[in-house]
Amino acid sequence: MSTPRSESSRVRRVADRGRYDTETIHAVLDGALVSHVGLVSDGRPIVIPMLHGRDGDALYLHGSVASRLQRAVAGGVDVCVTATIVDGLVFARSAFHHSMNYRSVVVLGTAESVDGEEKVRGLRAIAEHLTPGRWAESREPNGAELRQTSVLRLPIDEASAKIRTGGPVDDEEDIALPIWAGVLPITPHWGAPVDAVDLPPGVAPSPAVADLRGDTVGA
Amino acid sequence: MSTPRSESSRVRRVADRGRYDTETIHAVLDGALVSHVGLVSDGRPIVIPMLHGRDGDALYLHGSVASRLQRAVAGGVDVCVTATIVDGLVFARSAFHHSMNYRSVVVLGTAESVDGEEKVRGLRAIAEHLTPGRWAESREPNGAELRQTSVLRLPIDEASAKIRTGGPVDDEEDIALPIWAGVLPITPHWGAPVDAVDLPPGVAPSPAVADLRGDTVGA
Repeated sequence: MSTPRSESSRVRRVADRGRYDTETIHAVLDGALVSHVGLVSDGRPIVIPMLHGRDGDALYLHGSVASRLQRAVAGGVDVCVTATIVDGLVFARSAFHHSMNYRSVVVLGTAESVDGEEKVRGLRAIAEHLTPGRWAESREPNGAELRQTSVLRLPIDEASAKIRTGGPVDDEEDIALPIWAGVLPITPHWGAPVDAVDLPPGVAPSPAVADLRGDTVGA
Repeated sequence: MSTPRSESSRVRRVADRGRYDTETIHAVLDGALVSHVGLVSDGRPIVIPMLHGRDGDALYLHGSVASRLQRAVAGGVDVCVTATIVDGLVFARSAFHHSMNYRSVVVLGTAESVDGEEKVRGLRAIAEHLTPGRWAESREPNGAELRQTSVLRLPIDEASAKIRTGGPVDDEEDIALPIWAGVLPITPHWGAPVDAVDLPPGVAPSPAVADLRGDTVGA
């Protein structure tokens, strides 16, 4: 459905690593914990890690009002949002053919500050992105908190994905070398919940937190 | 030891989250699997995930010769390299005070293409960054492979780290709410090695691969 609109969002090097369908792009954005947001400040590139969340074709970004990025983009500026999930290390016999399995998405466009109901919708998308169900468990933001928060919206219409999967591709003459080759998968692992120091006795981790860990029994 | 040289590498928002010592900066760079490299292309920001490795105060970056980034920086251009390690999700009672524990480093500067012995040193740093000991286990690159590879060097002298640790900081009046608050740690988990389809029988995962997984017994 989604198609890249400009040359700059096209994957160039390995044609078959480029994926442009909306489903793939959304899945990578939804699966990545953080984004790296690039912008141009005084002619120089700046890349800042930010939290993101998606609501349909809108990508919402969150950071402090006081941060440089938020100030710069208040009027709407060009950004490049890149989200990457590392799936494994690829070991070849040759140093040259070592690689990494990953899924990455680049979204280009103009990010704009949102307000009112859309700001709340953006914050909910970001909270739900990290922990589905947590928004409803938490105290919603009040007016003062909303004023201190800034949320940016970037339309996901100039986007591309790049994905590498599978094992190493060694040169024919290297395959017989007695060097192990293959893939070492890597996945994020959630540890046991650590209570806040000021948590009153008897408050167990909530269903959203338990679900995130894949626990079969919620709190 | 290392100090930021310009206003743009200074952490602004929360003063106590900014760390500038060399040891901290190196540790975050060494611990992050990938970097996100930003540059300015036709006035627009571009952010690309890349592999990196460190050798002393030099950060080496690796990507395809044919990629846009490599073409752009062949003559030496401004980049911003950001590496982020996510350590956990921070759950507060209020949606507003949810946060993330993370360690992030930003390195600003001019990246330049390297050649000859330094190119090999850079490739070794990148290989050893991902899997200590793997360089010596692999077939070293030959002349043709080196010509197809491009390696960039960025001096780590304008760099800053930003780190968040610890639990949630809720408003006093929210603490008694019956909502779980605390931290859910997240760590990368290595799966079992998957042999390459063309691996000859009897070739077990090498010591470097076993060490990476924390196996007590190497191959």
